[in-house]
Amino acid sequence: MTNLKRWVLQHRPVGDIKAGDLKLVEEPIRDLADGEVLVRTLYLSLDPTNRIWMSDQDQYMPPVQIGDTMRGGSLGIVERSRSDRFKQGDVVNTGLGGWTSHVIVGGAMLMPAPQLPGVPLTAYMSVLGATGLTAWFGLCDIGKPQPGETVVVSAAAGAVGSIVGQIAKLKGARVIGIAGGKAKCDWLVNDLGFDGAIDYKNEDVGAALDRLCPNGIDVNFENVGGEIMNAVFNRMNNFGRMPLCGMISTYNDDGRPTGPTDFSRILMHRLTVRGFIITDFLPRAAEAMAELIPWVMEGKLKWKVHVDQGLEGAMDSLQRLFTGNHDGKLLIQVSPEP
Amino acid sequence: MTNLKRWVLQHRPVGDIKAGDLKLVEEPIRDLADGEVLVRTLYLSLDPTNRIWMSDQDQYMPPVQIGDTMRGGSLGIVERSRSDRFKQGDVVNTGLGGWTSHVIVGGAMLMPAPQLPGVPLTAYMSVLGATGLTAWFGLCDIGKPQPGETVVVSAAAGAVGSIVGQIAKLKGARVIGIAGGKAKCDWLVNDLGFDGAIDYKNEDVGAALDRLCPNGIDVNFENVGGEIMNAVFNRMNNFGRMPLCGMISTYNDDGRPTGPTDFSRILMHRLTVRGFIITDFLPRAAEAMAELIPWVMEGKLKWKVHVDQGLEGAMDSLQRLFTGNHDGKLLIQVSPEP
Repeated sequence: MTNLKRWVLQHRPVGDIKAGDLKLVEEPIRDLADGEVLVRTLYLSLDPTNRIWMSDQDQYMPPVQIGDTMRGGSLGIVERSRSDRFKQGDVVNTGLGGWTSHVIVGGAMLMPAPQLPGVPLTAYMSVLGATGLTAWFGLCDIGKPQPGETVVVSAAAGAVGSIVGQIAKLKGARVIGIAGGKAKCDWLVNDLGFDGAIDYKNEDVGAALDRLCPNGIDVNFENVGGEIMNAVFNRMNNFGRMPLCGMISTYNDDGRPTGPTDFSRILMHRLTVRGFIITDFLPRAAEAMAELIPWVMEGKLKWKVHVDQGLEGAMDSLQRLFTGNHDGKLLIQVSPEP
Repeated sequence: MTNLKRWVLQHRPVGDIKAGDLKLVEEPIRDLADGEVLVRTLYLSLDPTNRIWMSDQDQYMPPVQIGDTMRGGSLGIVERSRSDRFKQGDVVNTGLGGWTSHVIVGGAMLMPAPQLPGVPLTAYMSVLGATGLTAWFGLCDIGKPQPGETVVVSAAAGAVGSIVGQIAKLKGARVIGIAGGKAKCDWLVNDLGFDGAIDYKNEDVGAALDRLCPNGIDVNFENVGGEIMNAVFNRMNNFGRMPLCGMISTYNDDGRPTGPTDFSRILMHRLTVRGFIITDFLPRAAEAMAELIPWVMEGKLKWKVHVDQGLEGAMDSLQRLFTGNHDGKLLIQVSPEP
């Protein structure tokens, strides 16, 4: 019988995550109780919010407790089952299954993963998973881009941002992406059909926005916070909408992030700033899937996954989120697909 | 033939408004052209936004130009008419007629003032004017208080705030007002039915909010900005709404006002912050009036007007908005009612 391996939170990180904040432990897999299922993790999702969960700041879910398995979204395959709902070999959505090679779950709690013809399993961890839902609800439910309006998205080559920009194009908007590096910017414009891209590592973002958004900005899909957010915010039009999806540039900071330098712009330009977390929208997931699935099946939405191999390297992989050293949705393949 | 008197903007104020920023000029009244009406101003509305219009900061309307009559809402009576729509003695809504004793307007542009039985003319400059509409749309259309929710309103004894709190009560919410001084706080609780009031001049606002809002805050109707806004913001519940109506505490400052110290609360608690200006809602005024008029006629809404006499003292009167040395809606009676 194999052991399981899992990452346990040892210390809450101060600033950047350091070796020792998480610890990999190995332990025997216990026997299943009646109704339980043993799931072997196939893919683990790495997301900016992982950093939030490690801290004890005020946040939208309880933080991971010291000594607990690190939280994370996952997809797995049933290895053993004492539930009549699942049998060995079933691919299942383990929700927030965590940073673990195996997880034991009550069969009643588990959902089978959808399997559409020709769609790889990793799609359910990206464009047809929480990533795609985040993009759709933030943009369509909060941002509400109208044909001809200008949408700006930050972290545009990231998992969520790249989907946001493509959906905005499908809705008839002009789309400008902000990303780090020429390769990412080229991908946005040449492969995803963005109307323009700004390389924040090599360009003055404000000047580039002035050039690329001559009619101002109607929707800012905000993923990063900080100075880039401020540059976009200061160019938002009357009645502009700002879905606030994330502020990754601030997550490793100790203090709480302040907002735009001119808060009164919200008043003068009648802006709407609204924060959201995808879990709030899960009861309405079908609304988004009704558009996302056909777009994927018809080839109208492209997505990238960056798959690192092995749970052991999870901490190094997580750093990619903060350095931008990856493309699209960041996953760890924890064990081989069947 | 009498002359007219009007206040002209001489210099854009730096910090607090000073003598010399506006100048009172007197000049002959010109003859009417065909279709024009000469209106004698009865009441002039003084509002926090007057200070915004004097500056050339980024704002929601063009600022008043140097040399132009100071902008302001007014109500008047027809003295002479060459329009077949109006005759001498008609009471008319002159819109943004300005800080002037008389104004000449095209009859086609003018609206008769409503006149409900038993309702004084000053009501159309307060509870049944832009003030009441601001309170209704900001609260009902953006704040959307639900029965049992907690609403906090700042500048609560002011023209807009006092109406906001009463409407929130009529909608079934708990209401806490923030105002300056014991007399104002007593008025809110004893006369207007607020559930509690905080005297920001003599109490720690944060501690008082903790005591009076044990279940957190669902709606913050924001009128003042600055530290008071921050104290309320930091106690807002998940899915809270913040209609941003004004930031009067910052209007005399030189720099642009920053927002809450923890902008990420918008994300973590999925708040909606939305700025608004009442002119955006004027096409929908009937929705608000359908509730406001019956409430006024049935005695369910109370309001106060503070009427200073004479256009000559307008600059001194305006200072009351910043010192709080008035109750409710601040008006100047420019000439006697008929």
